[in-house]
Amino acid sequence: MKHEISEYFKSLQDNICKSIELTDDKGKFKEDNWQHQSGGGGRTRVLSKGRIIEKGGVNFSAVEGMVSESLKKMLKVKDDLSFFATGVSIVMHPENPFVPIIHMNVRYFELSDGQSWFGGGIDLTPHYIDEKQAKWFHTKLKTACDAHNSNFYPAFNKWADDYFYIEHRNETRGIGGIFYDYLKPNQEISKTKSSHSKDELFAFTKSVGESFAPIYTELMHGNYSKAYTSEEKKWQLLRRGRYVEFNLVWDRGTKFGLETNGRTESILMSLPPHADWDYNVELKPGTKEFETQQFLKKGVNWI
Amino acid sequence: MKHEISEYFKSLQDNICKSIELTDDKGKFKEDNWQHQSGGGGRTRVLSKGRIIEKGGVNFSAVEGMVSESLKKMLKVKDDLSFFATGVSIVMHPENPFVPIIHMNVRYFELSDGQSWFGGGIDLTPHYIDEKQAKWFHTKLKTACDAHNSNFYPAFNKWADDYFYIEHRNETRGIGGIFYDYLKPNQEISKTKSSHSKDELFAFTKSVGESFAPIYTELMHGNYSKAYTSEEKKWQLLRRGRYVEFNLVWDRGTKFGLETNGRTESILMSLPPHADWDYNVELKPGTKEFETQQFLKKGVNWI
Repeated sequence: MKHEISEYFKSLQDNICKSIELTDDKGKFKEDNWQHQSGGGGRTRVLSKGRIIEKGGVNFSAVEGMVSESLKKMLKVKDDLSFFATGVSIVMHPENPFVPIIHMNVRYFELSDGQSWFGGGIDLTPHYIDEKQAKWFHTKLKTACDAHNSNFYPAFNKWADDYFYIEHRNETRGIGGIFYDYLKPNQEISKTKSSHSKDELFAFTKSVGESFAPIYTELMHGNYSKAYTSEEKKWQLLRRGRYVEFNLVWDRGTKFGLETNGRTESILMSLPPHADWDYNVELKPGTKEFETQQFLKKGVNWI
Repeated sequence: MKHEISEYFKSLQDNICKSIELTDDKGKFKEDNWQHQSGGGGRTRVLSKGRIIEKGGVNFSAVEGMVSESLKKMLKVKDDLSFFATGVSIVMHPENPFVPIIHMNVRYFELSDGQSWFGGGIDLTPHYIDEKQAKWFHTKLKTACDAHNSNFYPAFNKWADDYFYIEHRNETRGIGGIFYDYLKPNQEISKTKSSHSKDELFAFTKSVGESFAPIYTELMHGNYSKAYTSEEKKWQLLRRGRYVEFNLVWDRGTKFGLETNGRTESILMSLPPHADWDYNVELKPGTKEFETQQFLKKGVNWI
């Protein structure tokens, strides 16, 4: 089944790239094929200086090898095992501060002892939070989840709040979304009081993956032509700085990749084209920036 | 003696800020006084949009409290102890790509069981490496070290190469300098076959701290008026991106500060005002950028 899953992920990458290119209507993805030292490899696609997307990456990989010592610790296994990991991961940095940053990842992991699981998520990082848009985004995710299990959205939404959290800033990365990991076939899924077959979990993975393009192309279309000031652009660059902080300090996927000899350029394609850091920025109550900052906390019920 | 040391560090901060302001001849440091929740506090000074310095910070702190569980692990102590830590740390991001980024830190640490030690270092990150300048910089550091112990420069220079290393890029942060830690009174200092009294170690710390202003103001004076192209500015922003990667992914001081509730704005004042990330930048052999990249490795004997 792993072949079927990785082939599906490849086609998902193709379809998403097509949708983004169609909507951007200027930028084209450039592809790099690469091999991993331990086996397998990937297709990294990056779009730069589009009409709407300033820098965006859509990465596919299917890698195999022996489980390293650090991975053994992380997975709490003791024996020498081989692994197979495949997934698609995406980050889009738009040019216009009113188009949100988005991240999506779907992945599948398999060990030679027979264990396997799915993981993934989608989360949105608006530079300016629009409550109506936030509600719409979360409703889309809830709909995608509800088709499979009505406990998924609440559980995975909370998981996203906890995961996409910048501890040293005491703020969430954005408005969250869904995040899940270790969804193992026929085993109870934490906080959902239910289990699913491998086929069902794969079907859920497909729903998450396929919800990306319709959601993000609509957010692109709806916002890219809004006028913005240089102050609003500046705020976008500061928010991108926080995005960098999250990815390099707290994101377990990024850290794990960098510490285990992953392909650096594919891992760090998530970083923005430009980012700013000012010392101790103080926001004035009543401004749009202040309002956005107030929303960057866990537990907001957007729906 | 800890009072004497922290008072000295305060005066060092004062003197360095004066020298930088005098040389910059436009920018002024703004000061924030802050308290740490566990006891003590600091004075953070940041200069923005100067004539030569685009963003620079000079931080003094003297903090005390109980040793946390994570610090116990790091220090390999088991008992409940209190600590006192004081130091000055500096990062300067110049506007002109031909002025190098510099970092300096001197610090003193004391535990309630009677242990105490000094640590610190200076390292230079030129956006464009100039061999003559690199030699001059290292000679200055060697001279400061040699006045105390002729084994210090070789040992601490190697330590800097190992410390200021961006593993996931397989490159050093810049041309290194000196780095040292755990210099304990009357105990043999690793790789130097010698020991020093507390007074002697304090005197060495002073030499390191006082070498900063003459070194960096000369580098400012000598380079700030050089003409540069937009391509050279772009390269500076990419190199700053790597600086961010080192500080957020590998710098133990930054990571420790962020994970132990340090004052975030003081810790992250080291980040540049603007930084760029392009996907998979390929440098053409023969260019200045390519040449600089070739030098970003351990073990270069600059003197």
